[in-house]
Amino acid sequence: MAVGLGPLPTLHPVPGFRLGIASAGIKRAGRKDIVIMEAAEGSTVAGVFTTNAFCAAPVLLAKQNLSTSPRYFLINTGNANAGTGKPGMQAAIRTCEALAGLANVASEQVLPFSTGVIGELLPAEKVIGALPAALDNLSADNWPQAAEGIMTTDTLPKGASRQLRLSGQTVTITGISKGAGMIRPNMATMLGYIATDAKVSQSVLQALLRESADLSFNRITIDGDTSTNDCCMLIATGQSGVSEITDAQGDDYQMFAEAVKSVMLELAQAIVRDGEGATKFVTVQVNGGANRDECLDVGYAIAHSPLIKTALFASDPNWGRILAAVGRAGVPGLDVEKIDVFLDDVCITRNGGRAEEYREEQGARVMAQAEIMIRIELGRGDYSETLWTTDLSHEYVRINAEYRT
Amino acid sequence: MAVGLGPLPTLHPVPGFRLGIASAGIKRAGRKDIVIMEAAEGSTVAGVFTTNAFCAAPVLLAKQNLSTSPRYFLINTGNANAGTGKPGMQAAIRTCEALAGLANVASEQVLPFSTGVIGELLPAEKVIGALPAALDNLSADNWPQAAEGIMTTDTLPKGASRQLRLSGQTVTITGISKGAGMIRPNMATMLGYIATDAKVSQSVLQALLRESADLSFNRITIDGDTSTNDCCMLIATGQSGVSEITDAQGDDYQMFAEAVKSVMLELAQAIVRDGEGATKFVTVQVNGGANRDECLDVGYAIAHSPLIKTALFASDPNWGRILAAVGRAGVPGLDVEKIDVFLDDVCITRNGGRAEEYREEQGARVMAQAEIMIRIELGRGDYSETLWTTDLSHEYVRINAEYRT
Repeated sequence: MAVGLGPLPTLHPVPGFRLGIASAGIKRAGRKDIVIMEAAEGSTVAGVFTTNAFCAAPVLLAKQNLSTSPRYFLINTGNANAGTGKPGMQAAIRTCEALAGLANVASEQVLPFSTGVIGELLPAEKVIGALPAALDNLSADNWPQAAEGIMTTDTLPKGASRQLRLSGQTVTITGISKGAGMIRPNMATMLGYIATDAKVSQSVLQALLRESADLSFNRITIDGDTSTNDCCMLIATGQSGVSEITDAQGDDYQMFAEAVKSVMLELAQAIVRDGEGATKFVTVQVNGGANRDECLDVGYAIAHSPLIKTALFASDPNWGRILAAVGRAGVPGLDVEKIDVFLDDVCITRNGGRAEEYREEQGARVMAQAEIMIRIELGRGDYSETLWTTDLSHEYVRINAEYRT
Repeated sequence: MAVGLGPLPTLHPVPGFRLGIASAGIKRAGRKDIVIMEAAEGSTVAGVFTTNAFCAAPVLLAKQNLSTSPRYFLINTGNANAGTGKPGMQAAIRTCEALAGLANVASEQVLPFSTGVIGELLPAEKVIGALPAALDNLSADNWPQAAEGIMTTDTLPKGASRQLRLSGQTVTITGISKGAGMIRPNMATMLGYIATDAKVSQSVLQALLRESADLSFNRITIDGDTSTNDCCMLIATGQSGVSEITDAQGDDYQMFAEAVKSVMLELAQAIVRDGEGATKFVTVQVNGGANRDECLDVGYAIAHSPLIKTALFASDPNWGRILAAVGRAGVPGLDVEKIDVFLDDVCITRNGGRAEEYREEQGARVMAQAEIMIRIELGRGDYSETLWTTDLSHEYVRINAEYRT
């Protein structure tokens, strides 16, 4: 029941970046559960990782190896290798060493990623057994297969791609993501991989990834839980022939940065659209804040409120619940008489009370849509933040209550 | 489907405190929707109120009038008088003035409380019309009727009562509460009234109420939403003849304070037991914190996690979800290898990983109970906090999605 998420768009190959898929039978025999990504020598790599203190063994290892010229990304589904202690770390290291041996690189040049059930040891031998087939399978055209290969309980694969002209040459940016809850039912969770053939220095790439993640993957919430395994990688192979971007200045950087943000936003929104039990795709925009944090506090108070989320599921324009969430967001000295609330373009609350001209059927009409914007005008300043979420449906409870039964 | 909540216990009358009930027909004809409480002259009164910036008109008025020797408490259900602007404030004032006129007190000696639908103007004339009947009905024996009179979508009335001996004389503490979600579906929400015939100075009473609320009403969460109308009042009539408590010292104060806390905890837990869609009553205890805040951060991360709450509903001992919630609670420098997690007395996680001796059927046995304790040992210090919550069931979604249909 994904909301407004169609088949995969065209995913342009990225020169210098290949993907291979194989079956290791980690959870189910025959399932494509191993994806290897290969970046050409000389690529720069940026990464952002979960802030959860209980981060998984592969996350610790990927963070550690990020600075040692990564060449290979080894992803498995079916097992998160989280909460597995030292044996889990050893299993992750063993799979990296095996891939490094086959590919003739240093084991520190392999970054591991795992997603699946928490608390079960990664069956390293199964993973290792599938590596030759995945390497044989490497191809620049395998983005759609990889998008399916990293799925767990996602209902649809998620990808986005852009091409743009920089200094008269074509540059490609292609990415895939997976996830359907911030923590999946016993599964963990959001992964994103974006590759480009632009040439970008590591420091610029890392800063761009962090900035873009803050506007995309860090602005989506399904249930407010942060997983133990979240990772997003941005890889620049440099094979387009366009001259290197070494600082965040100039038209080329701006155009490139916009395209990267656009790809990441599409990938992040795809996760919300495929959110567990989602029947609505909801944009929460908070304008007129005195600073960024208070915009986010108000936005998340709305996006996390079970009462607003159930009202969205019921297509009920229950503005009292929205006001109450704004009021409890902890904004210091909030003047409620300055607050306006809109559902799309319908003003439901003006100056902290029901808008005089508002009629229930106007709100009901917007709430019946599959895509809805809730807009809050705080009237305190010039800051603005936007985030995306879903409703809370019977299906969400069913998925998360019945996952292990 | 309240969890472990039986019929009302004996609610001892409190000398100097009377309660009257009447029907104003605010939302439904014939429903007992007005409760008046009367405290004898010379009573001291303490109050704590919602921190929601969008607090309702009666909350603003009750806060303002708290310092002017309150004598009457006027409570209506069926309408929250929240989000109603100046007309709402005028309606609240008018009802207070009418009661003051009938009772021959100053209008500032009446404190109003409203609970029900947000955003509709309080029908003041209906309330005023019911005041004479409620005053005629005043009796010290009306606690059970008042407990029913303040209910909205509560499935059961909630009350608690204690008697203790202070300096050789009997002192009574009796209270009632209502609420089933921190915000009810379009309803607002938690109210508590506790009266005693002890004689207590206002400053001691206020400090005791704040401290007790922090350990009871402020330690329960059903859906993490804070309402626009939450209020809790503690009234001391002084009619027991026991000498006045003027400071928080000595055995009498200790015994009295313990009894007040015990009444308030029972009332607060009754709200959780009657939580919307609740099938489980869950105690979350966090021990070994370096300070109070980090214990609460971890506790609320668990109590608010939809993934843990759906696992509780499913009786699924999903310890990965508990670890992930602890990990994202934002405790600085958390050493995950020191963390133990217990379900009742079953250790499911030791030193941050699955406990070696743990067997799934042990966890499943605890999770199948109606009452469950989740205990976290942080291993960082001596602080400890306890809070109470429910599971997240299909029924919660149904109640909150279908309320207005």
